[in-house]
Amino acid sequence: IQELNMKLEMLEKGGFDHFMLKEIFEQPRSILDCMRGRIYPELGQVQLGGIKAFADKLKNIDRIIIVACGTSWHAGLVGEYLIEEYARIPVEVEYASEFRYRNPIITEKDVVIAISQSGETADTMAAIEMAKEKGATIFGICNVAGASIPRLTHAGVYTHAGPEIGVASTKAFTAQVTVLTLMAFYMAQQRGTISDVKMRELLTELETVPDKVQSALASNELVKYIAGEIKDASNCLFLGRGSGFPVALEGALKLKEISYIHAEGYPAAEMKHGPIALIDEQMPVVFIATNNSSYEKVISNIQEVKARKGIVIAIVTEGDKKVKNMVDYSIEIPDTDEAFLPLLATIPLQLLSYHIAVMRGCNVDQPRNLAKSVTVE
Amino acid sequence: IQELNMKLEMLEKGGFDHFMLKEIFEQPRSILDCMRGRIYPELGQVQLGGIKAFADKLKNIDRIIIVACGTSWHAGLVGEYLIEEYARIPVEVEYASEFRYRNPIITEKDVVIAISQSGETADTMAAIEMAKEKGATIFGICNVAGASIPRLTHAGVYTHAGPEIGVASTKAFTAQVTVLTLMAFYMAQQRGTISDVKMRELLTELETVPDKVQSALASNELVKYIAGEIKDASNCLFLGRGSGFPVALEGALKLKEISYIHAEGYPAAEMKHGPIALIDEQMPVVFIATNNSSYEKVISNIQEVKARKGIVIAIVTEGDKKVKNMVDYSIEIPDTDEAFLPLLATIPLQLLSYHIAVMRGCNVDQPRNLAKSVTVE
Repeated sequence: IQELNMKLEMLEKGGFDHFMLKEIFEQPRSILDCMRGRIYPELGQVQLGGIKAFADKLKNIDRIIIVACGTSWHAGLVGEYLIEEYARIPVEVEYASEFRYRNPIITEKDVVIAISQSGETADTMAAIEMAKEKGATIFGICNVAGASIPRLTHAGVYTHAGPEIGVASTKAFTAQVTVLTLMAFYMAQQRGTISDVKMRELLTELETVPDKVQSALASNELVKYIAGEIKDASNCLFLGRGSGFPVALEGALKLKEISYIHAEGYPAAEMKHGPIALIDEQMPVVFIATNNSSYEKVISNIQEVKARKGIVIAIVTEGDKKVKNMVDYSIEIPDTDEAFLPLLATIPLQLLSYHIAVMRGCNVDQPRNLAKSVTVE
Repeated sequence: IQELNMKLEMLEKGGFDHFMLKEIFEQPRSILDCMRGRIYPELGQVQLGGIKAFADKLKNIDRIIIVACGTSWHAGLVGEYLIEEYARIPVEVEYASEFRYRNPIITEKDVVIAISQSGETADTMAAIEMAKEKGATIFGICNVAGASIPRLTHAGVYTHAGPEIGVASTKAFTAQVTVLTLMAFYMAQQRGTISDVKMRELLTELETVPDKVQSALASNELVKYIAGEIKDASNCLFLGRGSGFPVALEGALKLKEISYIHAEGYPAAEMKHGPIALIDEQMPVVFIATNNSSYEKVISNIQEVKARKGIVIAIVTEGDKKVKNMVDYSIEIPDTDEAFLPLLATIPLQLLSYHIAVMRGCNVDQPRNLAKSVTVE
């Protein structure tokens, strides 16, 4: 029976050593599933049946509040960036646990978006109840159909990532980011803050993202090599700017969760206001240094770290030369519109934590002290 | 000449071993100086000459955006908590470096508060220029009179903390928090969101804060002892809830800056969503566990850390028994209204970093890689 169970588990893992790795590699498919039937590049349209009834309301709102915990909170930060950029609605992202115990300013005009993979996160549920009492409209972004949060909300959009077994979230995160991207575009469309031409351009590019995620996964062997080089670090920094900042936070959280290395994410420019004091020749620093609007600024942050002898690992755009020549290790991801950068830049960071954790002999799928779904407060 | 210089420096340090320690001990005075002529407890009034001309505008604003970097950003988070709580105006706190490179949503209706000790922080200045172009009203909170930021802003309130020499900010931080507290009360007064009785009560309590800061400083020897016990840690977590969360962030930043220990602040409830995986018998965890609205919740977070054998240091309210019996080390601060908790809870954390850094042989006043005023982007 033991043998049969083992085989069954191998089967469930689809030939991968761990659920986490399987789920990382499922992302081209899970992101595609998440967009399926929702984007129409030729028409320049996004359709989100789940929140369609609120299309008019979205035209007139002044503020969106996103509540979430952990990885979902990082997805929320990406969502803030995209919604503000495209739909021009001010967004606040709150830790659900903090939000619920304050006396937050909420009115009937506000839309609250609650994000939770399991749909059972206790603090997020309590935050929803409170916002509902104050008359806000609540949207949910969940992965598990029929869970408590989808039942508590007024409307919502499922992530359709499929069951996630690894405790450290991977494909659920990129699916949350995909839904938030679609929501941002949908709101922009309702509010007329984006041109048809731009929308068609963005959706055409978005359609290529699953294939580009597949290309990003091709860095697996290189990432494994880099993991071997830095696996004994006791600390690590992850730095990014713009939507690369939440990617950095999420990369750091993954490493914390499964390898027990103390990793911390920071907006790259904040480094000078304290964290740079930590940097010496022992400290790996991971930069999101892709070729977008903050490229030059990130380069000067990399120079600062190199001047202090830190070990720099950079996520760069395919074909990049400038950053490559400055850093210790670089990992390429395909070029894309800045809007979709988080979906691609996250991939090598997931692989990096995975390989480091495996090399350190950690239980990747069930890290110590952590539960898949945090149903206690 | 060498000898004379040494003596002069000793004199400037007022008998303390370092400017940082001198400045920590100056806080009863600097906080008092910051409030002087601005609060009238018997009348239940706050007067802020610097922003008086905008009293009417403050009645009708929908949103405040605080921009800052580093320690000032932490003061901004305390400000968010207080302004939302008392004046009921939604506040967003942005990293200046992130804000300036986005295309932020700002209108003439918005008030932007820029916080900078030196008044010369490059990213904060650039953020101000951008917000000004979009028509926002800009208030400054600076320590150095006549610096660039006070000259760029429409109005402002000086912190009057006196010159700060130590690179890691201490008295400038508590003065920023004091000014933001006064601003929150002033706005609440203009908007009628606070009763006269409550205002008198709060201001009467605020008047006692300098003395209570003095009492908090009496923990110095105990804190020094605790510092000796944990000084060899390579990592540390700081956890708090509500306005204790920015205090935790600031406590972690101090430790990073001057002792080069990788310390990180987190909202206590987020621990379960990742950082708890880091906790083992090597990991000191500092809790802000004072007797306020989140007391019971923080206690359950402490239990979780103790269950994983973490070393817990708790900042508690004078006379506390419950937390004391659960933790490895506790440090008392005087009881006060929750509004003023950050001013008191910060003190032992400053002392903790100071003593750890001294014991580790670090250059406390001029930590490696850091500048007092970050005038580069």
